[in-house]
Amino acid sequence: MSVTAAKGFTAAGIAAGIKENGNPDLALVVNNGPRRAAAGVFTSNRVKAAPVLWSEQVLKAGLLSAVVLNSGGANACTGPKGFQDTHATAEKAAEALNIGAGEVAVCSTGLIGVLLPMDKLLPGVETAAAQLSEHGGEKAAIAIKTTDTVHKTSVVTKDGWTVGGMAKGAGMLAPGLATMLVVLTTDADLDSDALDKALRAATRTTFDRVDSDGCMSTNDTVLLLASGAAEVTPAYEEFAEAVRTVCDDLGQQLIRDAEGASKDIKVEVINAATEDDAVEVGRSIARNNLLKCAIHGEDPNWGRVLSAIGTTSAAFEPDRLNVAINGVWVCKNGGVGEDRDQVDMRYREVHIVADLAAGSETATIWTNDLTADYVHENSAYSS
Amino acid sequence: MSVTAAKGFTAAGIAAGIKENGNPDLALVVNNGPRRAAAGVFTSNRVKAAPVLWSEQVLKAGLLSAVVLNSGGANACTGPKGFQDTHATAEKAAEALNIGAGEVAVCSTGLIGVLLPMDKLLPGVETAAAQLSEHGGEKAAIAIKTTDTVHKTSVVTKDGWTVGGMAKGAGMLAPGLATMLVVLTTDADLDSDALDKALRAATRTTFDRVDSDGCMSTNDTVLLLASGAAEVTPAYEEFAEAVRTVCDDLGQQLIRDAEGASKDIKVEVINAATEDDAVEVGRSIARNNLLKCAIHGEDPNWGRVLSAIGTTSAAFEPDRLNVAINGVWVCKNGGVGEDRDQVDMRYREVHIVADLAAGSETATIWTNDLTADYVHENSAYSS
Repeated sequence: MSVTAAKGFTAAGIAAGIKENGNPDLALVVNNGPRRAAAGVFTSNRVKAAPVLWSEQVLKAGLLSAVVLNSGGANACTGPKGFQDTHATAEKAAEALNIGAGEVAVCSTGLIGVLLPMDKLLPGVETAAAQLSEHGGEKAAIAIKTTDTVHKTSVVTKDGWTVGGMAKGAGMLAPGLATMLVVLTTDADLDSDALDKALRAATRTTFDRVDSDGCMSTNDTVLLLASGAAEVTPAYEEFAEAVRTVCDDLGQQLIRDAEGASKDIKVEVINAATEDDAVEVGRSIARNNLLKCAIHGEDPNWGRVLSAIGTTSAAFEPDRLNVAINGVWVCKNGGVGEDRDQVDMRYREVHIVADLAAGSETATIWTNDLTADYVHENSAYSS
Repeated sequence: MSVTAAKGFTAAGIAAGIKENGNPDLALVVNNGPRRAAAGVFTSNRVKAAPVLWSEQVLKAGLLSAVVLNSGGANACTGPKGFQDTHATAEKAAEALNIGAGEVAVCSTGLIGVLLPMDKLLPGVETAAAQLSEHGGEKAAIAIKTTDTVHKTSVVTKDGWTVGGMAKGAGMLAPGLATMLVVLTTDADLDSDALDKALRAATRTTFDRVDSDGCMSTNDTVLLLASGAAEVTPAYEEFAEAVRTVCDDLGQQLIRDAEGASKDIKVEVINAATEDDAVEVGRSIARNNLLKCAIHGEDPNWGRVLSAIGTTSAAFEPDRLNVAINGVWVCKNGGVGEDRDQVDMRYREVHIVADLAAGSETATIWTNDLTADYVHENSAYSS
């Protein structure tokens, strides 16, 4: 049901001809109100794509009536012309919808450093506007795919109100892989401050902790739009939890569809002195190419886990570290623990627990293995 | 000529049976004096192997008479028993050479988390001591190989004195890949303070700037031993330059033999505000898996270079960045530059220049591409 699960939203997804293979490549999401509150979180990469620069600016007012998303080109590192193109896209949508361009966010994904074919994109915006529908969420989710093998949507329905969303990509926010674009919608009646607070809280422990390959995109964007059409104002905590659930679900879908992956790896850091320590250690483990190769080979190589922990500034004593892989404590007190041959690595999900024995904080980072397919997908053609 | 190119040194390399395939796995390097000054640089990983903990302690006196090196096992994360084994190894060498154990450094490389077969290693030390020779440098270099396809040696001879050395591994010091072990010898007559200063200066701009896969070893060690046998005390600057030349040569040999690599990538960062900025940016580019895959595919994907620069805290303005790949300025002022089709990517060496346009400092980091062979080599078996 995607972005049209919540009342007050329409969407469309079409093939505008931006992608040379004729696949769908343009999505439009419209908030028909009565409220048009919005919040957004963007890549922390300092090299930001034109649509990110535009949408960050637009979001400052906390109001969005529409989002235009295209695959087939990131419009990043495209200079002043790229920014003009983003602006023209917003203007075209505004014209078609009879709203102001300052209420239109733009998201793009695809190859960096190439200008978008505006002769195809602008007519596409008109076509999409003409096809807007309360059932268009699915098509919108399909139109934003790039290397995704499946489209990703999620919906949580509560007492009279709903949070739904769609995502593309196989990565994270800060830093992020390829481009992750997410649009969330709700019909709950909330102002932009509440949306912003709930969105930041949710992304901090979901998308921000999905680390497919440690590479940060120039285009990552997560938007949350509220229509108020349900005429219900939920308690903030309940709303925030619903947003977190949808973000978590979409984040899991991103990892499961990560480029070339054959294993989904849950890295759980426990007994850390601080949450920051837990996140730092989790990220270091999740980014260790040697470990990711070992997991691909179904080798419970805990030495590579310790080696990754050792590069961090987290509080720990090397001879108190413990590591479990799929439930077997293969490393105890920094040395050899239970028999590594007991570790069953046959399944897609691999669970690594790193016990820092330095406190009581915890954090979980999701990543995937490093495979020859990942290399192929990222070397055989530009993306 | 390796570690026996300089006068005053003998060495041996034998098969002690530590490796199950019967390949050479134990090396011994002995400084016969008259001087026995030494300096060392070790991994900055906080999880340090037993031989690193031992050798760091031994080096505090600035004196080394011998180095025992084994492949076939890293003796890392092996607890108190692992440290006892390292100690016993030094004791055995001391006994065979009639010196003190506190004058013997130990280096190990191989799988983490496995105890060494001391019943094979200790007799091996005796055998090696019996085979010490002024021509043993080559055999010693061969005995420390693990996944290395070739052994690595380098020699610089100046006016009456020599600096020579051997290395194994495909990585770097801090952080480092797999295990890098390096032993350098000189017959110049210098004290340990001069050796330490020259060694740290040399490694900072050579091994420290070789970044094969961003993974830091628990065992990295670089030792420099001086015999004084040439009875010449060179000017410090001349000596330091010779040490730097040997380190640079060995570092290049490590990159050229990096696991699975098909391209050697020179990342040169220019016009940085500070040298630290240049190193940070160079490392970020060198560690970007997506870029490393693109280079493997002979794709001059400069967008991934900018995306990597954008994750750093270095001083720069996104719209002033320039990037050249193999001499073609494919990115100018943060946007599209010269035609990327002009970039010739057919050769093994790839030269990336990142111009930060923020100052006048520079740094060069060496890395390699990410290939399916790297994945295979690090997933098909434990290492």
